[in-house]
Amino acid sequence: MTKIDVRADLKYDVRFATVFLFQIASARSDHQQVLWEQLTLDPQLNVETHQVGLEGNQLHRVLVQPCEFQISYQGNIELAPEVCRPTSVGESNPSEMPPEVLTYLNPSRYCQSDLLARFAFEEFGQMPRGFGRVQAICDWVFEQLDYTPGSTNSSTTGADVLLQRTGVCRDYAHLAITLCRGVGIPARYVAGYAVGLQPQDFHGFMEAFLDGHWYLFDPTRLAPVSGLVRIGVGRDAADVSVATLTGNALLIDKTVWANNSDDTMPHESQRSDPGAISTA
Amino acid sequence: MTKIDVRADLKYDVRFATVFLFQIASARSDHQQVLWEQLTLDPQLNVETHQVGLEGNQLHRVLVQPCEFQISYQGNIELAPEVCRPTSVGESNPSEMPPEVLTYLNPSRYCQSDLLARFAFEEFGQMPRGFGRVQAICDWVFEQLDYTPGSTNSSTTGADVLLQRTGVCRDYAHLAITLCRGVGIPARYVAGYAVGLQPQDFHGFMEAFLDGHWYLFDPTRLAPVSGLVRIGVGRDAADVSVATLTGNALLIDKTVWANNSDDTMPHESQRSDPGAISTA
Amino acid sequence: MTKIDVRADLKYDVRFATVFLFQIASARSDHQQVLWEQLTLDPQLNVETHQVGLEGNQLHRVLVQPCEFQISYQGNIELAPEVCRPTSVGESNPSEMPPEVLTYLNPSRYCQSDLLARFAFEEFGQMPRGFGRVQAICDWVFEQLDYTPGSTNSSTTGADVLLQRTGVCRDYAHLAITLCRGVGIPARYVAGYAVGLQPQDFHGFMEAFLDGHWYLFDPTRLAPVSGLVRIGVGRDAADVSVATLTGNALLIDKTVWANNSDDTMPHESQRSDPGAISTA
Amino acid sequence: MTKIDVRADLKYDVRFATVFLFQIASARSDHQQVLWEQLTLDPQLNVETHQVGLEGNQLHRVLVQPCEFQISYQGNIELAPEVCRPTSVGESNPSEMPPEVLTYLNPSRYCQSDLLARFAFEEFGQMPRGFGRVQAICDWVFEQLDYTPGSTNSSTTGADVLLQRTGVCRDYAHLAITLCRGVGIPARYVAGYAVGLQPQDFHGFMEAFLDGHWYLFDPTRLAPVSGLVRIGVGRDAADVSVATLTGNALLIDKTVWANNSDDTMPHESQRSDPGAISTA
Repeated sequence: MTKIDVRADLKYDVRFATVFLFQIASARSDHQQVLWEQLTLDPQLNVETHQVGLEGNQLHRVLVQPCEFQISYQGNIELAPEVCRPTSVGESNPSEMPPEVLTYLNPSRYCQSDLLARFAFEEFGQMPRGFGRVQAICDWVFEQLDYTPGSTNSSTTGADVLLQRTGVCRDYAHLAITLCRGVGIPARYVAGYAVGLQPQDFHGFMEAFLDGHWYLFDPTRLAPVSGLVRIGVGRDAADVSVATLTGNALLIDKTVWANNSDDTMPHESQRSDPGAISTA
Repeated sequence: MTKIDVRADLKYDVRFATVFLFQIASARSDHQQVLWEQLTLDPQLNVETHQVGLEGNQLHRVLVQPCEFQISYQGNIELAPEVCRPTSVGESNPSEMPPEVLTYLNPSRYCQSDLLARFAFEEFGQMPRGFGRVQAICDWVFEQLDYTPGSTNSSTTGADVLLQRTGVCRDYAHLAITLCRGVGIPARYVAGYAVGLQPQDFHGFMEAFLDGHWYLFDPTRLAPVSGLVRIGVGRDAADVSVATLTGNALLIDKTVWANNSDDTMPHESQRSDPGAISTA
Repeated sequence: MTKIDVRADLKYDVRFATVFLFQIASARSDHQQVLWEQLTLDPQLNVETHQVGLEGNQLHRVLVQPCEFQISYQGNIELAPEVCRPTSVGESNPSEMPPEVLTYLNPSRYCQSDLLARFAFEEFGQMPRGFGRVQAICDWVFEQLDYTPGSTNSSTTGADVLLQRTGVCRDYAHLAITLCRGVGIPARYVAGYAVGLQPQDFHGFMEAFLDGHWYLFDPTRLAPVSGLVRIGVGRDAADVSVATLTGNALLIDKTVWANNSDDTMPHESQRSDPGAISTA
Repeated sequence: MTKIDVRADLKYDVRFATVFLFQIASARSDHQQVLWEQLTLDPQLNVETHQVGLEGNQLHRVLVQPCEFQISYQGNIELAPEVCRPTSVGESNPSEMPPEVLTYLNPSRYCQSDLLARFAFEEFGQMPRGFGRVQAICDWVFEQLDYTPGSTNSSTTGADVLLQRTGVCRDYAHLAITLCRGVGIPARYVAGYAVGLQPQDFHGFMEAFLDGHWYLFDPTRLAPVSGLVRIGVGRDAADVSVATLTGNALLIDKTVWANNSDDTMPHESQRSDPGAISTA
């Protein structure tokens, strides 16, 4: 068990009345408990809280009149992941997958698995099925790509980064998800906080569905998987934007922060062999 | 109220053991009742039935060993749509949309609304908000595109057809959905049966979320909206494939059929002014 | 006749031995005479001068060892364009076009006229043939696009900007060229200097082949066509890069400048009705 | 030396007056002599013959009124290639390349080398420079792709086939050209006849510029390089279409044929180690 403090502060210059949808609060599950959390708005405004979608992503909606507006989220989160030996985790058969998982085999905006199905099959189709195959996909993505801030934008897909060979965390995740779906493994995008990420920011990683559970992977290797705090999941980054705005406002400051709040800080040794971790 | 008989027969040459996921059965809702239905498999096999996703699409899953395999679905469906005066239907504000609707503003595989947002805004951003704006988008799509079977394939997006100016029903729907999302109107893809479609086949159309309800639109004008029977909905066609196969099988015959089972056949007059129809 | 002073200074931090190919010198033709020109390199290095391609673009090649390197081009150019009444300029028939012109009907990297042929035909196919049709295409491009520095990059095509509705001068030219080719009018990209461009920079515009001559068009309307000095032409911007580098060097300063050297400065009145101008 | 008989018969149903541009005649060079050739049109019509572009592609232009129209080209061609030991062929430095070659480093419609530059560099950037590197690129393309007629169309690029992993001869050539340009080797598309191609058809292959000469490569391995007869060259297939039509005509029959006219048929042994062949 690990306890993690997370915090995000976002400041906006709101020019016209703007509706904000935020996805910045920690998700709640059997494996991720919110011991304490606080959402602070300045100026104080009424904020709606919604659980949306099949996965229960938490969404905060607020209508803001022109002003300088700040929203802050703080939480203390306890992670109690399931950890398995990777070699014991196989793949699910399509005849046995829970129906709600099947949607994560479909192509999506940034994970055009239909376009890369043959590519994926030729690179990874002959490998032994199981956790190791997803790990091999993530290793391959890590080796193919160079982590280059600014090299991609909000319209960049997994197929694009496969060609251009550069990207940031969301692109790494998109490519790995695309390749997993291409070989028939359901995969989805996860937005979250990450202990140890440098520089500190929101993080994007992924989950693959294996043996009846969703397992965490981070193809960027930028932070230990054991220190990832889930905000929300979706087919790709389109579903878990930190903030969606209707109106006119400019982000003028952002601070994101995640740290172990006890002695359970993930060690390097954990990073190198964390086991197969499931928190969904 | 309208009663419609629908039927689909699909025949496959199954070469290796194959898992089929079918979406061919009529959806059930307050506005669309299934008076009678029957699913027939030849050879007889156990078939699982699942309600999946937020919208309760019905999915049939069956594992088939090598053989010649046929599945037939028949149903008698009663439609009791809500019909409003189009001019009375406005748009929902983003601050008031039900949270589960917000996902239909996100870009998806075939409806890359992020790419076309500015295009949509410049063409349709200044129009009066409401049913008429969605109708204007559908009219524009109808006028821009030529209906040309074979001109697109399974990787064609709404942006592609905007450039190439040809497509089939799914492409028409994808482009209209993309443009609706681009101006901030939630929109989704609907797969279904259509009375009067020539030649007879499955049909693809769309719904836009207006004033708290999902309204039906068919930018192809190939069949009266009042004769559309819903199978399922999704972000785009990726979510409502008639059949998804894992294995190796070849579709060797397909027959689709939809007809009024009473005297309530939609007339040409209804086609030209059907009102604003909601069945979701 | 107009006399124009042009000047470009480019300064590089050369980290490793680098081969530079520059296209910054004024082209020479019957309609564009170089009265005086000077190329200055600091440090002084041997530079090769080549006429390349069918159009005789002038290319300077120089191998530079690590240093801070500056190249300056200055020229005094006399323009003696052919000016016709636009209404008198028709289109050439494909059966009569000079063979060397036909290549400018082919799709190219940034002008994928095959993709937009139907689009072009439906928008502009029914218009009267001639200068006015190209002008209509340029007007349409001007109206559709917003001039937005930074909104595109070196991989952006004409089709891309048609969807995203923003771009800079090269994008405007690419889209207009693409549409011209799409309706069967040979069109090509021109890089050059432009009197009156704000802010001062190299400029990108286009030529269309009509009635046996290449006529100048600038869909951006950022500078009068009568003050455009040609550097080189190509199928699209890929052919007339200001500088192509093999090695490792960083552009650290750029100054571009074009001004009338006598009293023949183009007036606003000329801008609004410059006639059909040919300098090729 | 090898003598090859080539023949192409194209039959069209011409519905409206149509201008045809044909590129079906054998090119002429020091290494490829046309011993005899004949162009036959039925009905007999005046045909213009042009040498176009820097490479002197031969173009036949004819205006055809509505009829059933057939054009036949026959030739007896003598090939006298330069053959070198592959290991003796290095790469040219950009500081020494002839200027007219530099254009074949630019990205083009189907060979978007800007998009794949990093990919190319990471896969092939560290290899020894020379003939072997181009051979390695062609071998890699051969291994990555499956030759699948119908899997691509006239808008498919080299980047597309890299993702989808299937294509036909033009796609193989496009991808290999793209990768060559990506590592700084000028490369161009060649359309031609090919002895031994099954089924008989026009063929598409490529040339790379090495050590001052253009060397032939065929990444499809469908026919021996020593039996390739050049029709024309270009940046990619856009420049060497067999037929370009303005008007309305339908291709209703095509026969293509190439055969050794003496005993110099290329043997299997030649195919497996043909040496480095240059005919340009």
